[in-house]
Amino acid sequence: MAIHYRRIADYLRSALAGRGPEQLARLQPRHDAPPRRVPGGSALTEESIEARWALPGLPGSSRAQLADERTMGERDAYARNIENFIGTVRVPVGLAGPLRVNGAHALGDYYVPLATTEAALVASYSRGALLITEAGGCACAVLNEGVTRAPGFAFATLGESVAFVAWASMSFAALKEAAGKTTRHGELVDMQLTVEGNHVHVQLEFMTGDAAGQNMVTIATEAICAYMVEHSPVHPRYWFVEANMSGDKKATTHSFMTVRGKKVSAEVVVPAALIEGRLHTTARAMADYARMSVLGGVMSGSIGVQGHYANGLAALFIACGQDAACVAEAAVGVTRFETRDDGGLYAAVTLPNLIVGTVGGGTQLPTQRACLEILGLAGSGHARAFSEVAAGLALAGELSIIGALTAGHFTRAHQRLARGTSASPRPA
Amino acid sequence: MAIHYRRIADYLRSALAGRGPEQLARLQPRHDAPPRRVPGGSALTEESIEARWALPGLPGSSRAQLADERTMGERDAYARNIENFIGTVRVPVGLAGPLRVNGAHALGDYYVPLATTEAALVASYSRGALLITEAGGCACAVLNEGVTRAPGFAFATLGESVAFVAWASMSFAALKEAAGKTTRHGELVDMQLTVEGNHVHVQLEFMTGDAAGQNMVTIATEAICAYMVEHSPVHPRYWFVEANMSGDKKATTHSFMTVRGKKVSAEVVVPAALIEGRLHTTARAMADYARMSVLGGVMSGSIGVQGHYANGLAALFIACGQDAACVAEAAVGVTRFETRDDGGLYAAVTLPNLIVGTVGGGTQLPTQRACLEILGLAGSGHARAFSEVAAGLALAGELSIIGALTAGHFTRAHQRLARGTSASPRPA
Amino acid sequence: MAIHYRRIADYLRSALAGRGPEQLARLQPRHDAPPRRVPGGSALTEESIEARWALPGLPGSSRAQLADERTMGERDAYARNIENFIGTVRVPVGLAGPLRVNGAHALGDYYVPLATTEAALVASYSRGALLITEAGGCACAVLNEGVTRAPGFAFATLGESVAFVAWASMSFAALKEAAGKTTRHGELVDMQLTVEGNHVHVQLEFMTGDAAGQNMVTIATEAICAYMVEHSPVHPRYWFVEANMSGDKKATTHSFMTVRGKKVSAEVVVPAALIEGRLHTTARAMADYARMSVLGGVMSGSIGVQGHYANGLAALFIACGQDAACVAEAAVGVTRFETRDDGGLYAAVTLPNLIVGTVGGGTQLPTQRACLEILGLAGSGHARAFSEVAAGLALAGELSIIGALTAGHFTRAHQRLARGTSASPRPA
Amino acid sequence: MAIHYRRIADYLRSALAGRGPEQLARLQPRHDAPPRRVPGGSALTEESIEARWALPGLPGSSRAQLADERTMGERDAYARNIENFIGTVRVPVGLAGPLRVNGAHALGDYYVPLATTEAALVASYSRGALLITEAGGCACAVLNEGVTRAPGFAFATLGESVAFVAWASMSFAALKEAAGKTTRHGELVDMQLTVEGNHVHVQLEFMTGDAAGQNMVTIATEAICAYMVEHSPVHPRYWFVEANMSGDKKATTHSFMTVRGKKVSAEVVVPAALIEGRLHTTARAMADYARMSVLGGVMSGSIGVQGHYANGLAALFIACGQDAACVAEAAVGVTRFETRDDGGLYAAVTLPNLIVGTVGGGTQLPTQRACLEILGLAGSGHARAFSEVAAGLALAGELSIIGALTAGHFTRAHQRLARGTSASPRPA
Repeated sequence: MAIHYRRIADYLRSALAGRGPEQLARLQPRHDAPPRRVPGGSALTEESIEARWALPGLPGSSRAQLADERTMGERDAYARNIENFIGTVRVPVGLAGPLRVNGAHALGDYYVPLATTEAALVASYSRGALLITEAGGCACAVLNEGVTRAPGFAFATLGESVAFVAWASMSFAALKEAAGKTTRHGELVDMQLTVEGNHVHVQLEFMTGDAAGQNMVTIATEAICAYMVEHSPVHPRYWFVEANMSGDKKATTHSFMTVRGKKVSAEVVVPAALIEGRLHTTARAMADYARMSVLGGVMSGSIGVQGHYANGLAALFIACGQDAACVAEAAVGVTRFETRDDGGLYAAVTLPNLIVGTVGGGTQLPTQRACLEILGLAGSGHARAFSEVAAGLALAGELSIIGALTAGHFTRAHQRLARGTSASPRPA
Repeated sequence: MAIHYRRIADYLRSALAGRGPEQLARLQPRHDAPPRRVPGGSALTEESIEARWALPGLPGSSRAQLADERTMGERDAYARNIENFIGTVRVPVGLAGPLRVNGAHALGDYYVPLATTEAALVASYSRGALLITEAGGCACAVLNEGVTRAPGFAFATLGESVAFVAWASMSFAALKEAAGKTTRHGELVDMQLTVEGNHVHVQLEFMTGDAAGQNMVTIATEAICAYMVEHSPVHPRYWFVEANMSGDKKATTHSFMTVRGKKVSAEVVVPAALIEGRLHTTARAMADYARMSVLGGVMSGSIGVQGHYANGLAALFIACGQDAACVAEAAVGVTRFETRDDGGLYAAVTLPNLIVGTVGGGTQLPTQRACLEILGLAGSGHARAFSEVAAGLALAGELSIIGALTAGHFTRAHQRLARGTSASPRPA
Repeated sequence: MAIHYRRIADYLRSALAGRGPEQLARLQPRHDAPPRRVPGGSALTEESIEARWALPGLPGSSRAQLADERTMGERDAYARNIENFIGTVRVPVGLAGPLRVNGAHALGDYYVPLATTEAALVASYSRGALLITEAGGCACAVLNEGVTRAPGFAFATLGESVAFVAWASMSFAALKEAAGKTTRHGELVDMQLTVEGNHVHVQLEFMTGDAAGQNMVTIATEAICAYMVEHSPVHPRYWFVEANMSGDKKATTHSFMTVRGKKVSAEVVVPAALIEGRLHTTARAMADYARMSVLGGVMSGSIGVQGHYANGLAALFIACGQDAACVAEAAVGVTRFETRDDGGLYAAVTLPNLIVGTVGGGTQLPTQRACLEILGLAGSGHARAFSEVAAGLALAGELSIIGALTAGHFTRAHQRLARGTSASPRPA
Repeated sequence: MAIHYRRIADYLRSALAGRGPEQLARLQPRHDAPPRRVPGGSALTEESIEARWALPGLPGSSRAQLADERTMGERDAYARNIENFIGTVRVPVGLAGPLRVNGAHALGDYYVPLATTEAALVASYSRGALLITEAGGCACAVLNEGVTRAPGFAFATLGESVAFVAWASMSFAALKEAAGKTTRHGELVDMQLTVEGNHVHVQLEFMTGDAAGQNMVTIATEAICAYMVEHSPVHPRYWFVEANMSGDKKATTHSFMTVRGKKVSAEVVVPAALIEGRLHTTARAMADYARMSVLGGVMSGSIGVQGHYANGLAALFIACGQDAACVAEAAVGVTRFETRDDGGLYAAVTLPNLIVGTVGGGTQLPTQRACLEILGLAGSGHARAFSEVAAGLALAGELSIIGALTAGHFTRAHQRLARGTSASPRPA
């Protein structure tokens, strides 16, 4: 977050536009009465919605857009997904594909719905998907799964930490049982213990069936903590159900190195003719790019090295009722490109943090379920297949963008400059 | 991504359900003819949409949801934002607030529209916003801004790398001029050069006005590269307009340490009475949490340390037509809590990677613009204020969740277990 | 490694001193005959040493220093530790302490030998050690141990990777047996498997008795690899006994998050009176420092957060015949300071990567063994105790430096400026 | 630092050997009188040394080794480098080379003295050095230099932080002047400012001439802080001369991404015949290794990606009187290997954190200066050349180890298992 002194001097001058000190005076607390709070909580009645739109300053034109007739008609569908409801935003959806997936769980040719407001995104992913499909599809496999919650316990001394850990490490079966009382779908499957002086962090890893499962694991973890506090031979001074070691809603090296949600690999071998015919480049150029780009990632301190998983994942997540905040944790992994002796390209992606589900969360909402049904993956029994499609999609995006970056960029650049526009995919 | 040998043995047994080898046989390429590609590109005519829905396997029920009348009626509005259009998904929106912001650019009490499918999210952020407002509001300041694109150049030798860098470092004015010919709103404001053997990476930093600006900087960078290739005393063997050092669409330590989009800090001092009355906890408990949680973040290898910026940012971004994929890069930063001698709490967040805009991208779409208008921040001149509101929102979320984590969690846990439900915010 | 364009322009101008292009011409290969290679390999005869000193350009004065009489007399002692031997360097040793350690393995008051050429280092560590001792000593506990080697296997396809992992995950006992045939002291105790497309990385974790054990684990790993290649149902295209996932000789987040060598925590509670009397500061000031400094570490992207473990560890390692290159991996961890209600200070350090041993490597050399004997920790049965002393030493160093940084620095700074010198510890 | 629950259960059982609870009882403070502190401070008189050896428990045999006649005779040489002096340790030195360096500053064929206790290290580096030399030498260039110290200032509010930064960013000339009064050799050359709520971190970057310069920059920074506190329009509540953003004595992503000490790149092209003849492998196998190994580094979360810089650097630093603790920060960087169309190998290393000097610190000690004189690089005017030799040495080590890892390892492994020994280099 460091800023070069010359840059900040310039910036503050420009951003504060000469207003300097007075501008900073605005940063003081103001204690005049604020307008009233948003009324109504999780109520979805017409009145409660009306009351919200009556708050000071909300434009009637906004209401006409968000609280349209269709939305108002189906508003009960949102009862378990939102509070202080005022309507819906409409996000445009494009179809990419078909994407042929040869997965341990997903097997088929998928038209993938992507909800995005960014031009060229669907076109670029679709191009990659078609390339994969023409190459015979991508192999995909879920390699592990688990969702972590990580309570923290503060003891008086290191000795107590060690005593607690010794006890906990031998109490796994009891903890699993305590968790099992809170959920039918969740199951405690693993545990890691971290002593840091008189603090102990516990990473509890759960299987969550076809749900993303973040609430499920919180409730189960509370039950485990209750059991621990009751039965441990030493008692914590204080403790928290989560002490920031779970990787929830953030990219972390720990989640990257283990698993969060599903870990999936996808690979494809693209023949030389397809690379030339469809991407107008060569496997060698793409491998040259990959070598430079991996080090670019290393030198910019990314977690893993990849191109732009976030683009496809965000669009897929919004379309299919996934938790869009999980893009923060899901968009990490490793992309690898290698040349083959016959001029073909080996390409693989590995995404260890795909927090996805096909039941629960937003998956039941009208349009979101409709998108899952386009994939044929709505409801129970489909979460693993969905994660394999997501990995295949990420692979498609990497192929397309690296193809674009290595194909005739120089000429194209000139053309663009001339025309001021371009239909071909760009780093988005 | 490493998996413990016992865990993977268990997992593969369970995931492959005893099918073992046969299951792996599915990972082979299949060369039977795939179904046809999605037709029509960026066309938004009724016919093109019809043709897409006629693809094999797309359910009519999905069409009824996505291609509803309103969507079809306004479909031309999506022309510059999507390809292979088939309709829209509706994401529910809740209002949080009011959130009082005392910013260098944003000054007012904001009702913040949040689009999410995750229960409790709006309630939790709204609780935090009200707390801030009752405390007099949060001070906010944009501290820097810039969007980077990072071309890479491969030379024959280290000597050529050095010669190129020597030339480039003295050609800033010319590069700025070359960039300036491609954009009215963008401006090259800084440059960093990285020699890695015979490779040179160039980080070009642009101001982008009120737009998020990612396309703008790509076009400007192509112009700069064209200039470099033409005028440099040494010629690259190959080069790419982006070699993965820009931090685009990913969390990177480099972006965290510098800026990507806007860098904003927000702070508030919450009196003891409010902490007790509204959060049912104390500043000391929250600071104890913060100390443990910062180290939890460190021990899980996060970039920066914070709780769950991604939740609020994703919901705000979707509501307001921001690029949702940028959650991957935006959701990093530093949260700090300190006790005050009078029992109050000092809380601050700093988010260095807020890629946001109030013009361009999805900000012009019907419902997205409606959300910006709720904030009073649609269109030119509002990007900095919007980023300050985003930082204030992140602060609200941190206060609410840490409040929840430190307040009577144990009892509450029991109640929840009994009732199987809870209205109070949980780590989401 | 990025450099600001203005800075590199300045730097190249100054460093190349106007010689510019000609200077770069020096970066070309030169093919004239080089002088002869260093003769004699691992021979330690007088003739072989003589022959080395007869190489062109070696000063006689250097020989007089390095190949002194004592060194020449004991040269056979170095037979298993060096090649191309020409003598010894003498590194000065100071004693710190006594350091009272109340450890699970180390229990006593230790005078700690530190070999360093950096002024103030021994004084600073000794001050911290005395403080700990006056406070009743530090609690220490080894929490885990293990040394990893990480072979990598390249297969044809992802399917083969999965098949290999499925097989390997069920073959632990056989792998352990294969390893066991190569070593009496080493034991395979754990294994992690990472699939990345058609690559599989295997992290093998060994216990190594009282030796640091890096060679031992390499030999055992070769045996495991041989077994794998012979018995696996699928055969790698190629493989390597180490593919850079072991953390050997480098700071990695993986090693920080697990263990490399020994993981040890040490803690102490220092009463207010001692903090004032010995450090001339307060627990509160030290905790204020810690809070800022933890975030300083986070914002500089360190692995873990600590002050200067490397100083004490490097000096201890050189004195005691440890592998000094392991400072790169050992000098990571977490330091935590908290105030107590009575004005005391709780301080803890946790070092997860202490690669140390009391047998093998340099521990048998004359002066190095003499240093281990000062500690009473030479030879078998002492490695865990040695690691606890190392952690206690690190704690001493953190207390001393943070004490110095928080105590009257401002006044002292002025005095120093006046006198141009200072006896008090500075960040070294 | 997390430990799998089964592993810790096993480990605690084994490490505590069934003593369990009693063992933990040892972790209590003990308040019996400790033995006396080490007497004499920085005195080097015979009496003071005598007094130290008279401490309880120090073996006479240790004294005979450390306080040998030569050491006692030259003890005054150590006056500015050690406190509580009791003698010296002798570290064996081997010569590697010759290493041909074609650098911007170093130009010649160097015999490189390496002090280590690790078998095979000198042999391996020497093998790599000879390979480089036969290939015509390595090109080397210092690309940047600078040593950072990073004070931190705590203000009351964010507004004050911004006001301070605005002032500081326009006061560079005055700060440079304040620093200049404290040192002839040091010069403030750059500054970065980081606002994090009401905290401001300042990264001050200095040129330090031919010294490593860490003390010099501390003193200069104290002068700058004094100036800031006196002249700033807002006054900090407290501040520290270093708040852990300098990267001092630790690997950090910030230092890796910028510079600490010297940033140097070194490269060589090795013809196919040499790779085969000397390393018994091929460029392709080495590039295959590099591709896997780079991702191994990424997946283990290293800072940069490289093999084992620490081995060569630690041995060079100890031999030449550098600060051995700086291995922690110096041993990071990027190694890159590429095949050439003619079967040759392009290899490059880039080390951005070479904290080295040829004056000050340990460089004046008898044997350490003797080692610098072997290189012809003792005293003023040689620091840049020394850093280029260090980078060339790192390159030699990477070539040698990757050669070993890719050459006939399988067969060799069997032979080793049979013979129980090996002369060829292993990952050390």
